[in-house]
Amino acid sequence: MTPFDLPAVWALIEAALAEDVGRGDLTTQLTVPCDLRVSAAIVAKQDGVLAGAPLVDRVFAALRALELTITHHVLDGSSFTSGTRLASVEGFATDLLVGERTVLNFVQQLSGVATLTRRYVDAVTGTKARIVDTRKTTPGMRVLEKYAVRMGGGHNHRLGLDDGILIKDNHITAAGGVGAAIVAARAGAPHTATVEIECATLAQVDEALAAGAEVIMLDNMTVEQMAGAVRHIAGRALVEASGGVTLTTVRAIADAGVDLISVGALTHSAPAVDMSMKIESQF
Amino acid sequence: MTPFDLPAVWALIEAALAEDVGRGDLTTQLTVPCDLRVSAAIVAKQDGVLAGAPLVDRVFAALRALELTITHHVLDGSSFTSGTRLASVEGFATDLLVGERTVLNFVQQLSGVATLTRRYVDAVTGTKARIVDTRKTTPGMRVLEKYAVRMGGGHNHRLGLDDGILIKDNHITAAGGVGAAIVAARAGAPHTATVEIECATLAQVDEALAAGAEVIMLDNMTVEQMAGAVRHIAGRALVEASGGVTLTTVRAIADAGVDLISVGALTHSAPAVDMSMKIESQF
Amino acid sequence: MTPFDLPAVWALIEAALAEDVGRGDLTTQLTVPCDLRVSAAIVAKQDGVLAGAPLVDRVFAALRALELTITHHVLDGSSFTSGTRLASVEGFATDLLVGERTVLNFVQQLSGVATLTRRYVDAVTGTKARIVDTRKTTPGMRVLEKYAVRMGGGHNHRLGLDDGILIKDNHITAAGGVGAAIVAARAGAPHTATVEIECATLAQVDEALAAGAEVIMLDNMTVEQMAGAVRHIAGRALVEASGGVTLTTVRAIADAGVDLISVGALTHSAPAVDMSMKIESQF
Amino acid sequence: MTPFDLPAVWALIEAALAEDVGRGDLTTQLTVPCDLRVSAAIVAKQDGVLAGAPLVDRVFAALRALELTITHHVLDGSSFTSGTRLASVEGFATDLLVGERTVLNFVQQLSGVATLTRRYVDAVTGTKARIVDTRKTTPGMRVLEKYAVRMGGGHNHRLGLDDGILIKDNHITAAGGVGAAIVAARAGAPHTATVEIECATLAQVDEALAAGAEVIMLDNMTVEQMAGAVRHIAGRALVEASGGVTLTTVRAIADAGVDLISVGALTHSAPAVDMSMKIESQF
Amino acid sequence: MTPFDLPAVWALIEAALAEDVGRGDLTTQLTVPCDLRVSAAIVAKQDGVLAGAPLVDRVFAALRALELTITHHVLDGSSFTSGTRLASVEGFATDLLVGERTVLNFVQQLSGVATLTRRYVDAVTGTKARIVDTRKTTPGMRVLEKYAVRMGGGHNHRLGLDDGILIKDNHITAAGGVGAAIVAARAGAPHTATVEIECATLAQVDEALAAGAEVIMLDNMTVEQMAGAVRHIAGRALVEASGGVTLTTVRAIADAGVDLISVGALTHSAPAVDMSMKIESQF
Amino acid sequence: MTPFDLPAVWALIEAALAEDVGRGDLTTQLTVPCDLRVSAAIVAKQDGVLAGAPLVDRVFAALRALELTITHHVLDGSSFTSGTRLASVEGFATDLLVGERTVLNFVQQLSGVATLTRRYVDAVTGTKARIVDTRKTTPGMRVLEKYAVRMGGGHNHRLGLDDGILIKDNHITAAGGVGAAIVAARAGAPHTATVEIECATLAQVDEALAAGAEVIMLDNMTVEQMAGAVRHIAGRALVEASGGVTLTTVRAIADAGVDLISVGALTHSAPAVDMSMKIESQF
Repeated sequence: MTPFDLPAVWALIEAALAEDVGRGDLTTQLTVPCDLRVSAAIVAKQDGVLAGAPLVDRVFAALRALELTITHHVLDGSSFTSGTRLASVEGFATDLLVGERTVLNFVQQLSGVATLTRRYVDAVTGTKARIVDTRKTTPGMRVLEKYAVRMGGGHNHRLGLDDGILIKDNHITAAGGVGAAIVAARAGAPHTATVEIECATLAQVDEALAAGAEVIMLDNMTVEQMAGAVRHIAGRALVEASGGVTLTTVRAIADAGVDLISVGALTHSAPAVDMSMKIESQF
Repeated sequence: MTPFDLPAVWALIEAALAEDVGRGDLTTQLTVPCDLRVSAAIVAKQDGVLAGAPLVDRVFAALRALELTITHHVLDGSSFTSGTRLASVEGFATDLLVGERTVLNFVQQLSGVATLTRRYVDAVTGTKARIVDTRKTTPGMRVLEKYAVRMGGGHNHRLGLDDGILIKDNHITAAGGVGAAIVAARAGAPHTATVEIECATLAQVDEALAAGAEVIMLDNMTVEQMAGAVRHIAGRALVEASGGVTLTTVRAIADAGVDLISVGALTHSAPAVDMSMKIESQF
Repeated sequence: MTPFDLPAVWALIEAALAEDVGRGDLTTQLTVPCDLRVSAAIVAKQDGVLAGAPLVDRVFAALRALELTITHHVLDGSSFTSGTRLASVEGFATDLLVGERTVLNFVQQLSGVATLTRRYVDAVTGTKARIVDTRKTTPGMRVLEKYAVRMGGGHNHRLGLDDGILIKDNHITAAGGVGAAIVAARAGAPHTATVEIECATLAQVDEALAAGAEVIMLDNMTVEQMAGAVRHIAGRALVEASGGVTLTTVRAIADAGVDLISVGALTHSAPAVDMSMKIESQF
Repeated sequence: MTPFDLPAVWALIEAALAEDVGRGDLTTQLTVPCDLRVSAAIVAKQDGVLAGAPLVDRVFAALRALELTITHHVLDGSSFTSGTRLASVEGFATDLLVGERTVLNFVQQLSGVATLTRRYVDAVTGTKARIVDTRKTTPGMRVLEKYAVRMGGGHNHRLGLDDGILIKDNHITAAGGVGAAIVAARAGAPHTATVEIECATLAQVDEALAAGAEVIMLDNMTVEQMAGAVRHIAGRALVEASGGVTLTTVRAIADAGVDLISVGALTHSAPAVDMSMKIESQF
Repeated sequence: MTPFDLPAVWALIEAALAEDVGRGDLTTQLTVPCDLRVSAAIVAKQDGVLAGAPLVDRVFAALRALELTITHHVLDGSSFTSGTRLASVEGFATDLLVGERTVLNFVQQLSGVATLTRRYVDAVTGTKARIVDTRKTTPGMRVLEKYAVRMGGGHNHRLGLDDGILIKDNHITAAGGVGAAIVAARAGAPHTATVEIECATLAQVDEALAAGAEVIMLDNMTVEQMAGAVRHIAGRALVEASGGVTLTTVRAIADAGVDLISVGALTHSAPAVDMSMKIESQF
Repeated sequence: MTPFDLPAVWALIEAALAEDVGRGDLTTQLTVPCDLRVSAAIVAKQDGVLAGAPLVDRVFAALRALELTITHHVLDGSSFTSGTRLASVEGFATDLLVGERTVLNFVQQLSGVATLTRRYVDAVTGTKARIVDTRKTTPGMRVLEKYAVRMGGGHNHRLGLDDGILIKDNHITAAGGVGAAIVAARAGAPHTATVEIECATLAQVDEALAAGAEVIMLDNMTVEQMAGAVRHIAGRALVEASGGVTLTTVRAIADAGVDLISVGALTHSAPAVDMSMKIESQF
């Protein structure tokens, strides 16, 4: 079961079609013969890394398109150059034209995420640092965008608020300190939940390690501060760098020895990779 | 009734919360006292134009947060600078922390759209050209992103496939020509539907005008070609420029005399405007 | 993609089955062998025009009926006489009996709309007037009833509040006059939206034309007044007659020269065309 | 808990609003100030019997209209004459205008059902016959239309396939006869389910009574045949007349002594009662 | 159409999958090759009566598992002993492992209901008493649990609040007495609804019979009191015993001559029948 | 945000009401005056531990009951004895009677889970062992039953397939061994996911520890074997006992030194705690 078959993803596909098709595609209904069959290609208009190809199938399935066949020429996770034919679709012209925009909107956006992730991953190649995503995702697209991050070579951070514990400054204040927060989390959490905590000082780091933190997030530190913290932690916990990471700074951060570098931009600011669907022949 | 109260938007808000909260916020449940009340601010960390403020209220309502009050300091459509307190929220810390990320994800993304739109609108100031959006929107976010375009000073193109007729090259081929396509569309469409058609040559433009097209889309023409086409059409139809428009080229295109300039990037590639929620006091 | 495959229509089909079947068909479960296969016909018991035949397939699909084949003998939009076999269905008796009522409720009602529409259309034959529907439709059935109007030979008015602008007396008052309302609508609306306005006097008509109205609705005027308005407008806008139109009056209204005649009764008061499903043989 | 609060009815209300409002009411957004408050009346334009008044409240609640008050002047089940002010609504003009059509579509249609039912009920006054509805209802509207029948003074037949057993000719054939069908039904059904069977002859009636049928439906018999059957049954079961009942024939059928007369037209062919919403003052 | 194809059951299956799978099965995705095909068996680990076998098919269908075949070795309603292979499933290992738990949770619980019901039914064998269920079912599982009761040899009481009338002490008080309550119910209810009433004394029984009650429920009476009531009623109504029935007491209650014995424990306290899914071979 | 406000729980509440109320509560509508106000108590009829009290409020809210007040006398997690008044409800009799069964079905079942859990927890008091639940939950009730386990003093295991890695024998075989499976899981999983693996032998335990397993599940071992394994692991990983745990055996298992004891029966076989709603006064 891929992410593409999760109920929430099917619901999103149907919502995306509903918002585009509305009560029906006026133009296609009125200008295109309903028995016209065509062959079309989805073509890249920029370089990139593909993510979301299986959504081509799901969108046309959600449209209940009949007698439609899809051939994928590039697989998710692969790089492509501008002009590449990513997939071919053969079916009724009316189905292709109705579904075209929704298909492209999905694949362009997810490929944008994969493409940007790949650039970050390439930038830290040779270090031990993993590029990880955040919860700063497009509303409704979380599980798809996290998949796209993986296709780009990145790793996922926790998926939501329920599959990991991440204690931030607000929680620390409310709980009465780093140690108290970690103890409370450990006492009540499933044993399957890892405890991560955001630390601003080495004193906090010490308190966190003493209380059993498994991951230390260093938030908005300088590269030098991070390197110092990594030496101080010395393998007693995983170390995550977070905050304002860019393609310019990511290598230096990785070189500071952190295990994880989280980058919100992967999902909230990746530009789409331009693609189009071109009808190549009609029957 | 604002776009924020449309059933599809409520469904999206609930989907966004569901994907983030999952089976519950482990960290907050375990570290934050359930009766702790706090006051927090949503603060801009970049300059921008605001869009989506009413979603703050909707997200917390969808969370069924009780005894929570929201004060908006900046209204949708207004510019703000980095550091501005956009809104204040007072309520139970648990509610604020659970809803924080979903709120920010919505407002950051929509403000990103509004902010980019404003830059395009400012670039064509003094011309008659309207900056309009496209159907290249984030799946599930169409109506919100089109609202954000308006907040940025742009105008909307058609909302979906059902509220306007836009005859593209594929339709023309299938229908047997520009004139035939327009005639078929006019014959069957509601009288409330405007007929727009994509033209690649002046010959097509002539055929379209003769058949009664109300809007002519010039796709991927040079600025010179567009200026020529505008002169040729001479007010007999609205003229829309489309394809590959950037902040660098948009002014020249406007100066060519077109009525409408459609820009896909407004919605598919606008970077988010960074914001955060900061707890300012606890009670 | 036909209207029958829109998500909202599938939801309606499932709601219709749910309200009829409830927790299961007691009678059929207890009296009909689950392996009994039969052939049945859907037979007209009155003359009419067919609309909704594809729903036979959708209802049985929504029932998840297996090994069921449907043959349509009459197509949507065709006239039929009482006694005509409209379609044949072969499958398990239990499936046919469970789905029978829901199938017939849909097809009877939609054919009622198509049949009444055809009578209005025939009444104005030879004039330029189009018979158009209104938003006075059965809750939940809008897109299907508008389809049935087309099958009867009528045309659709706007589909909802979002795909066209229709300024009525309340809007005019709120906006501060005919001209002000049209100017405001034009300034903010997508360029794809046509502006129609309801006028009660020739002075209003003049103001509307001056402000750029594309369609003038004459509400509850006498035939003579309408003829005068048509002459006055003289092709500068489309003219729609509205209000209290009956089969007795529709011809005279058409002869007054209007372009469009909207008839609410097409969808809110069309009597169903009686049909039944008859098992013709069992295997 | 009234029928108006059932989940399926709320879903229908939201679907009805969604199909009318779509992505938003263009006209109202552009021409009506969002802070304009008005008082409006829902006024009858024909005589009738009211049904559905509580839906006025539900539709505006589903619109999430704020600061809106509704005063009902006529209660469901009451008769009214043309010109009667049925209810008053005070609130923001934008809310009233967006919800107007959906409100009226519901109340007009349900009042149409109540009004037609009342005519049938009045026609059999003084007899013991109950006017009952059928399952020939508008898809999605079953529970509301059955409520409207009660408001008109009629009674309900079973609500769906699961709350009563009604053995028709197809079931009889499949089960191997009247007696066998009743025995099978009684053996497997909940003891709370009443067994009704359709009979075409007195021999079938005898077989049904012997097997324990509690209700005998006489389908498409002449009045004389029905009177004979009533005498023959002599109180051993309830007797229902069904098939082709009209306002012209219903009295004679009632006089034949049947207990129940089912009339499909109550729900499938009742014309709407015309109503309008008029803004009476603005603030 | 079986209960397994009702829309509410499909929704429950999808909810059950959603709550287990969440955003995806981490373990299976990471450790199991996506093209590994296996054959597995669902094996009983206790004796019991099967109910819910068709849900195996539905769960894997809801997972959208491809190229998966299911062979049922035991049918619903049949007894089995520990160790029995109930069904075989062949397909992709990833699909089987993702669906395993949801499948077993359904079939184990429903078989628990059927198994406990069978014990009650066996205990009253040879008497005329029917073992019937109640509305004390697991939220969301009503229709499935009532099906499981039938598979165990029991009968269903009413399915919900809408398919039968059951007047309890609170209703009697509110209505002003036994007779008044029955008269009100008969006057307003569909003729298809049976009237049952709870009686605590023989005086109430007499009043109920006089007013036309069809079923008398004796609530929390001793066996001797029940036997007396049965003699008193003497066939004028069905008699139901209710309240605190156990496997120890049920035989004596049946011997008291009642027609129906309702047992809440069938659905609210039946222990699951342990089962497991074992991969038997991989390809 | 409690588990009771999760969207999936609201959906379950609505499904539970829908399956019980159907098209409306016939008995209450016909016998209870709609303006009768009453005060009622929810009373325990057995000893137990409470879980689910907040659902009383949610069910009546889902019913859209007006002017209804609820007072809780016992809080979730507290023990109570038979006869205890758990909560009081004051409102319209019609609302209380419609919602009664759904309220009780929820609270009885969840309190059953909490009560059984408490017995297990008490049985291991003084040891370090945590009683944890499994994924063997009632379809649709996962998050509520896991909450009830916590109310009983137990802890949760992972919530679903996505918030923890649990490698079982099938995964091991498919992955090619214990070490290979763990390595694959660690390489691809979010760093927030804990890796647990089922081991049958000490050799497997060694392999698992070497590969970095954080939790070792000992499946179906004898108490002696478990004690040996605990000594062997010696704190290098958490140890979980699983399989066939009963109230008779749980203490000895805890004394063997394991950290976690998982008990499927907590959620799949807990008998409901009997409760009733009694009207105490009417106004």
